Formats: sequence, structure tokens, C-alpha cells
Amino acid sequence: MLLEHEIEVRVRYSETDAMGFLHHANFFNFFEMGRTELLRAQGGCYREIEERGLYLVVVKLQCNYHSPARYDDILKLRTRVVKVSAVKIEHAYALYRDDTLLASASSTLACVDREGRVQRLPETIGPSSLPAEFRG
Amino acid sequence: MLLEHEIEVRVRYSETDAMGFLHHANFFNFFEMGRTELLRAQGGCYREIEERGLYLVVVKLQCNYHSPARYDDILKLRTRVVKVSAVKIEHAYALYRDDTLLASASSTLACVDREGRVQRLPETIGPSSLPAEFRG
Amino acid sequence: MLLEHEIEVRVRYSETDAMGFLHHANFFNFFEMGRTELLRAQGGCYREIEERGLYLVVVKLQCNYHSPARYDDILKLRTRVVKVSAVKIEHAYALYRDDTLLASASSTLACVDREGRVQRLPETIGPSSLPAEFRG
Amino acid sequence: MLLEHEIEVRVRYSETDAMGFLHHANFFNFFEMGRTELLRAQGGCYREIEERGLYLVVVKLQCNYHSPARYDDILKLRTRVVKVSAVKIEHAYALYRDDTLLASASSTLACVDREGRVQRLPETIGPSSLPAEFRG
Repeated sequence: MLLEHEIEVRVRYSETDAMGFLHHANFFNFFEMGRTELLRAQGGCYREIEERGLYLVVVKLQCNYHSPARYDDILKLRTRVVKVSAVKIEHAYALYRDDTLLASASSTLACVDREGRVQRLPETIGPSSLPAEFRG
Repeated sequence: MLLEHEIEVRVRYSETDAMGFLHHANFFNFFEMGRTELLRAQGGCYREIEERGLYLVVVKLQCNYHSPARYDDILKLRTRVVKVSAVKIEHAYALYRDDTLLASASSTLACVDREGRVQRLPETIGPSSLPAEFRG
Repeated sequence: MLLEHEIEVRVRYSETDAMGFLHHANFFNFFEMGRTELLRAQGGCYREIEERGLYLVVVKLQCNYHSPARYDDILKLRTRVVKVSAVKIEHAYALYRDDTLLASASSTLACVDREGRVQRLPETIGPSSLPAEFRG
Repeated sequence: MLLEHEIEVRVRYSETDAMGFLHHANFFNFFEMGRTELLRAQGGCYREIEERGLYLVVVKLQCNYHSPARYDDILKLRTRVVKVSAVKIEHAYALYRDDTLLASASSTLACVDREGRVQRLPETIGPSSLPAEFRG
């Protein structure tokens, strides 16, 4: 099971703010893209998970901002799985421009159904898909 | 039937861009708020329309930008109904800061069901709710 | 010195996502509004701080999501100052719909100049404006 | 001089709304990306234009929406130069998913300096860079 994945993303003008930098809330949209693409690289597809009636909802986010990004910067985002329980996944993120670390972050997602009731993660991304040390 | 309504909206930092201005795409979010609040002032509620399975989807937008807006500016948005047919509504918008016209715009929305099939507008906002000269 | 402030904010359609909820990244835009309005209630103005060449940049964010918000919900956001040092401010946030706590969060902002060099906070919001127990 | 360029863009979760579709305001962010990349394909760079003190501001937008886009859809955006005068550029846009036209749009941008005064377009994208029939 692939546990880490890297994507490239270019900062859009619409994502900047009056300081001239990538607005701090938009980092979380990049992290969401990182999760989507890590899942795809693992052979899964988040859209199909939703079509089967399961949703991965964010229950916790944390981000440390080290250095700003500007319009047109090409950034590298490394997303990795940190821990998986029966119903939750934790990811960690590191966002770089070249070798400069711009932000480091983590998130916890819970699996729920359309009514918001907690559900087991789909088997393909659940704890049995991972080495023991990642199960939590 | 009320045909025009005004709201106030303050420009958020997250809505600005690296030029230091309200980003041009965000004007359309304000116009959407203008429609929501005009409908509420008319005694309707867009959320309830959706709960009954009808959606007002944007089929056409047009905006002329005359002058920029900045973070923390308080803007006034005038939204008015221009024309209503059995299945479509046209609105016009004028966005001001004090007496300065910042943008003028128009939109056409169509009424559809969950599958995207065109539907008659709800009676409360349909053509029979309006004077003859607004029916189109 | 006022240390806590409450604002009301209505969820916009453009802030929702395909789950039908306020998208998790948009909570941070509300928190930013909470800071702007707390500062205004204290007699300050963030726009004027920037016009004098100082910027309050986010260096750390953390949010726990307890319950989702929907389009058109009216939310109450309580923003309070938790700790202030010579160059940093910490805030805490609690977002409610009626009596339901939707999210609790915290942030740390640092004061920098246009070149990103750390600066003392403006006197009006710096540590000397606060009781001793808030200085950190 | 290259007059048309195509980019691919995948719809992000954060760009959808409660209808389950790409929100109508976000199309304009894609069109902005199309302009950025057309300019880059022409050998220019919008970031450098701004660094020299010139800004291309949107003065007019128009969009017709034909069919919705969903999360994770891969879209193709064709951006082309339609007309260029001494101080303005007009672009046209066509957004597709496979062979389905989702939206067709046009924009007019004006060249201004930091104070908002109209300026001549940089020579590399000005009217002399184009065949006579595009000058307007």
C-alpha cells in the first residue's frame, strides 16, 4: 500500500490576497487535493466512495506556516498517511517551493454516511490495508 | 411583489487578491447573496426551494467593472428583477461604495429539477407574481 | 481592553461544497472576520495597521470540527484574545448555530513588516494593553 | 504569435457547491488560469508584467453556462485572443469535458499602472504583435 504521494500545484491569482501571498485558508484546498491524489495513486477514487454513500469529513486540522507562497509559484505537496483506525485517517502534509518548507500540517478525517453517522472506512483504505504500525 | 432590494456587504480579506482589490470572480458571490436576500425580502427562501427539489441554476452572467473595491470597504448591492418567464428569471445588479458605481451586472437563472430538467418556477416567484411588463 | 467579541455570519451558497455543507477551509475566512471585528470593537482597524506597513500573518492554525453548517444557516462566532507577546497574538474561536458548537479553533499571528521581518505589535493591541495574565 | 492555447484542469472538491457542481463563480478562476498559461505559451509571464508595475484588470466578463461540471472532472479550457487595442485585450473561452461544451465566455482586460491609470499594453502582447485583423 502506497503511503506517500507528491503533487505539484501552481498558485493561482485568485488564491492570493492583498498581502500578495497565497491566502492561509487556501492551503487547506491544496491539502485536500493531496488526499484526493494520494488515494488515486493507491488505486482508489474519492468520488466513487461518495457515490457509494460514504463521506470522509474533516474533524481536525492543524497547520504551521513557515514561509509565504506567491502567485505563479510552483509548489510541491507531499501527503502521507500517518495513522488509520476503523473509522478515521490521519494525514500529514509538507508543502515546499524548491527546498523551502512553506507549511507543515496534519488532518484527521472520519468516515460517515449521508446522515453523518460514523461508518467503517472502505476496506481499500482501512486499517487492514496497512502495516501494523500505522493502525491506531 | 417587491422587485428590488439592497444589501450591505463588507469586503473580506480572503476575497482580495494580490492587486489589493476584491477579486473579480468574487463579485458573483455577492450577486448570489443579493438574489438570496431579495427572495427573502419577497417572503421566499431559496433553501426551501431546493428542499422541495427545485434548483435555480445560472445560465448566463455578464459583468462590467468600473472601479475596484478594497478590503474592509462597505459596499451596497442593489439587486432587481428585470424579467421573468415560465422557467427563467433575469436579475440586474449595481454595486456601489458610497455613490461610486463599482460594477453593474446581469444574470439569467433557469429552474431545473435534480436531474437538470427544466421546470416551471415556483408560483411565488413565477411570472404571475409580477406586473405584465416584467413577463418575458 | 475588550478581549472577546461576537459576530453573526450567514453561510453563503458559494461557501458550501458537494456534501451540502460549509467547506472546511471556509471556516478560516470566518475566523479572520472575527479577528477583524474584534479589533474594530477594540477601537483599532486592521486596514490602517497595513497602511502603516505592518502585517499580521498567520503562523499557526488549528481547528476541531464538531458539526456541519449548511447554506443559509446563521452562525455566531465568538473570537477572543488568549495570549499576547511583544510580536505575536493568539486567538481562540467558537462557532455556534444556536446552542450547537460547530467548531472550536485557535490561531497564532505574528507581526511583520513588508519584507517579512518580525516587528513589535502596534501598541494598541500589544501586551501592555492587556492584563498581566494574557501576556506570554 | 500564438493566439490560442489549451489547458487541462481538474475540478477540486473546494470548488463545488451544495448542488454538487462546480460553482458558477469558479469558472472565472479557470479563465484567469487560461489567460496566464496562454501568455506563458506566448513567451510572456504575467507575474513579470506586474513586477514591472503594469496590471491587466478585468473590465468586462460574460459567460454562458451550458452544462454543469462535477468534482474530479477533468476539463479542457481553450483560451484565445479575439482582439487587441493599444490598451485592451479581449479573450474568448470554451470549457469542455470530453466533447461536451460546458461554458463559453469572453472577457476584456485593460492595462493600468499601480494608480489605475490606463497604460499601453506591453509590446509583446500589444497590437503590433498580432495580424491586422485582430487589432481593434
